[in-house]
Amino acid sequence: MIKRKLEAIDYLSRNDVEKIHQASLGILEKNGIEFYSAEARDILKKGGARVEGEKVFFSPQLVMEQLSLAPSEFTLHARNSNNNLTIGGDYTVTAPGYGSPYVMDFDGNTRRNATYDDYITFTKLAGHSENIDVVGGVLVEPNDVEDKLRHAKMFQAAVTYTDKCLMGSAMGEKKARETVEMASIVYGGMDKIRDNPVLISLINTNSPLEFDARMLDALMVYARNRQPVIIAALAMTGTTSPVTLAGSLVQQCAEILSGIVFAQMVNPGTPVAFGSASSIVDLRTGNLAIGSPESVQMFSVIAQMARFYKIPSRGGGALTDAILIDNQSGYESMMVLMNTVLSGTNFILHSAGLLENYMTMSFEKFVCDDEMLGMVKAYMQGFQVNDETLAVDPLLSVGSGGNFIAHEHTFTHMKDTRLPMVSARVNYAGVKEMVDTPKRANDYYRDVIESYKAPKLDEKIENELDRYISNLS
Amino acid sequence: MIKRKLEAIDYLSRNDVEKIHQASLGILEKNGIEFYSAEARDILKKGGARVEGEKVFFSPQLVMEQLSLAPSEFTLHARNSNNNLTIGGDYTVTAPGYGSPYVMDFDGNTRRNATYDDYITFTKLAGHSENIDVVGGVLVEPNDVEDKLRHAKMFQAAVTYTDKCLMGSAMGEKKARETVEMASIVYGGMDKIRDNPVLISLINTNSPLEFDARMLDALMVYARNRQPVIIAALAMTGTTSPVTLAGSLVQQCAEILSGIVFAQMVNPGTPVAFGSASSIVDLRTGNLAIGSPESVQMFSVIAQMARFYKIPSRGGGALTDAILIDNQSGYESMMVLMNTVLSGTNFILHSAGLLENYMTMSFEKFVCDDEMLGMVKAYMQGFQVNDETLAVDPLLSVGSGGNFIAHEHTFTHMKDTRLPMVSARVNYAGVKEMVDTPKRANDYYRDVIESYKAPKLDEKIENELDRYISNLS
Repeated sequence: MIKRKLEAIDYLSRNDVEKIHQASLGILEKNGIEFYSAEARDILKKGGARVEGEKVFFSPQLVMEQLSLAPSEFTLHARNSNNNLTIGGDYTVTAPGYGSPYVMDFDGNTRRNATYDDYITFTKLAGHSENIDVVGGVLVEPNDVEDKLRHAKMFQAAVTYTDKCLMGSAMGEKKARETVEMASIVYGGMDKIRDNPVLISLINTNSPLEFDARMLDALMVYARNRQPVIIAALAMTGTTSPVTLAGSLVQQCAEILSGIVFAQMVNPGTPVAFGSASSIVDLRTGNLAIGSPESVQMFSVIAQMARFYKIPSRGGGALTDAILIDNQSGYESMMVLMNTVLSGTNFILHSAGLLENYMTMSFEKFVCDDEMLGMVKAYMQGFQVNDETLAVDPLLSVGSGGNFIAHEHTFTHMKDTRLPMVSARVNYAGVKEMVDTPKRANDYYRDVIESYKAPKLDEKIENELDRYISNLS
Repeated sequence: MIKRKLEAIDYLSRNDVEKIHQASLGILEKNGIEFYSAEARDILKKGGARVEGEKVFFSPQLVMEQLSLAPSEFTLHARNSNNNLTIGGDYTVTAPGYGSPYVMDFDGNTRRNATYDDYITFTKLAGHSENIDVVGGVLVEPNDVEDKLRHAKMFQAAVTYTDKCLMGSAMGEKKARETVEMASIVYGGMDKIRDNPVLISLINTNSPLEFDARMLDALMVYARNRQPVIIAALAMTGTTSPVTLAGSLVQQCAEILSGIVFAQMVNPGTPVAFGSASSIVDLRTGNLAIGSPESVQMFSVIAQMARFYKIPSRGGGALTDAILIDNQSGYESMMVLMNTVLSGTNFILHSAGLLENYMTMSFEKFVCDDEMLGMVKAYMQGFQVNDETLAVDPLLSVGSGGNFIAHEHTFTHMKDTRLPMVSARVNYAGVKEMVDTPKRANDYYRDVIESYKAPKLDEKIENELDRYISNLS
């Protein structure tokens, strides 16, 4: 976890935040949101919303009342309690890339379908990382696993190879329920996990202004079992949302708020996060531009709106539009990541591995992003200013024109600074071969996988989980 | 210029700032600073400092009195007044890489000595850029020009190929004087430039706690002619400064403050900037680690200390330790640049072109950094939140499940977003060849140079400048 000491960036003025808020309330009242689930609409109607066909209308008062039921901060529990996480407040936690169907092979830069083996490899990289807090979910799409077992095999890999916090499956009622049941096996029973949530799941809106049944059904399972859900918009400006950033944010807020209200009606107090994976679209080409400054601005404001609503936020990541691990993938990923952290985002999904916006995962990019996360974390940690570190005595003893290399103070503190994982600190004259950082990341990831040791999982649990999964149909 | 609307990051608490300030004053009083110029020491003595041998001691009261004479903001004038710059306040201006002896050739990644041709090429790239504000100075070291003419030829290239603001030469009295004389030719006479400063020059301290004669002599020329000077420390932790960040900052502040005090004693009211190019050293290898989070922290604090003293600040840049234009060069450069801007730094030197910390310039990296500058500028510009951009009517008319692509609002605003120079926004399936961003930057820079049109310089001035330079000995 990163604990933020700096003030979060408030990208907009309070007045502009208020304008977006009011416009969103207007959309919720006048256009409403389509909920493609009769069960969901029943709950919404009972909760006080007006329902017409598949459309649900919310009064401002209803929105604000329900919103106040959601906690501003909550704990997510891991198999190893040292890895428990606080979601909200001054904390930022990170999860790797999510949902990519493809993997980029380093040799030859060729893209291929992701497999379950890839899923396990990324899980180990995440398990090894000092900077990644959450695993599981669709870390990468295991295309070679039959659909009905995918969520179960992903869950199994996540709990077998790591003891970090987990994401759940949002693919309908059955898979969500089975994920909760598996969690109950691993974490000591249903009561235990209801009291100590262990799964955080990603519920996407369907922009503009809709929720599909699959997401709503999963949301209901998690909310009833008191597992946190991230309600997130993935709007694309000029196509699935207005082209202006302000307009897109109005729509995103309306969608997210309606999801949060719904979660509270399912089970008051359900932990939620206010999220976005939205992007501008480059209207010359029709491609996403998720590494653009405009997308960064939207992520900043999403975190600010979440603070306004006193709900934890989700956004950002190490995002890039580059299809290769090149200079661009570095500058875009760092810009998005750094600003997401500085803007006080509480949950950063997509924080390692992605290329080509959300389409492709790369082992080498994962390692480079892990490096970036370590750099950002070190930046956010600050440094000590006290008599010892102010070094007045060493300064007076070394004096003008001297050298500190042999001073005791240097020996005492030379390990205070972070060492890089793969970044080069060399000079041209001193190198025999020009090796770039992705190549070093390739070596690094192979070493990690070769020597990876999974944290022990109780054999009885392991067997029970195996049995449960083999009985799935 | 970037005009900052966001609050600058205050990296340290006010209390920690005060501690660094007090410790610096202690160093100035107890250790003093060595000034290797008898003329400088005379001025300092007359100004109220205590001089013993080559060492000059400053009382806290003297420091604060002299400091208050320096302006908190000033204007730097360009040949084209549209390019005039405000140095200080909420403004950030950028200058390219400075002082590199080498150029990295893109073909084969080979490093070679920089030439005057390279100097001209970089000048054109800077002239072309929408994001670079200042040219001139040692943009790159023209090793093939004889030393006594180097400053003159660099000045000539800068004023011939651009009409932007200029940096001067800090290599001793003669070159500084000649640079002022050349400026007087170009900008309409000595009185004119004294009233409307046109040269900003980089005066480096000699860490720890010294100034050499060459820098002091140049400083005196510029101060007497009312041209702004950046007083900057280039301390390396654990070698030429304490290994701790706080200790290094104490030393840097002491050095910079003494230089500012001296400039005020030479000519009260001399415009100055409070600057740093300092870095941590990786003590495993002895190499600089200028792209490290610790170096970023120091840049942040330098800007904060400058605000504390109400003096414009200088720091940062698109800095990296990578020797290649790879992913690392992207993430490090963006981290340093973004934080330098967000920290409210007023003058960013080294904002384009550098590889291998300060050693090597690259045309392709220059273009990539220009792209980054454009991105950061767009991020800092903010976006409009008003009835038109909030898009409530388009949202109500498109409604749930609709598409905004054909809406008039989309046509009206689709050009609001920035278009990239060289960044890719493509998808894997749509590309025939995997081309990385540095390769596109290579094409881009060649196009710029081929089609570059220099802004007209009055023929009479051109001839007079030629004559002046041919008479130099």
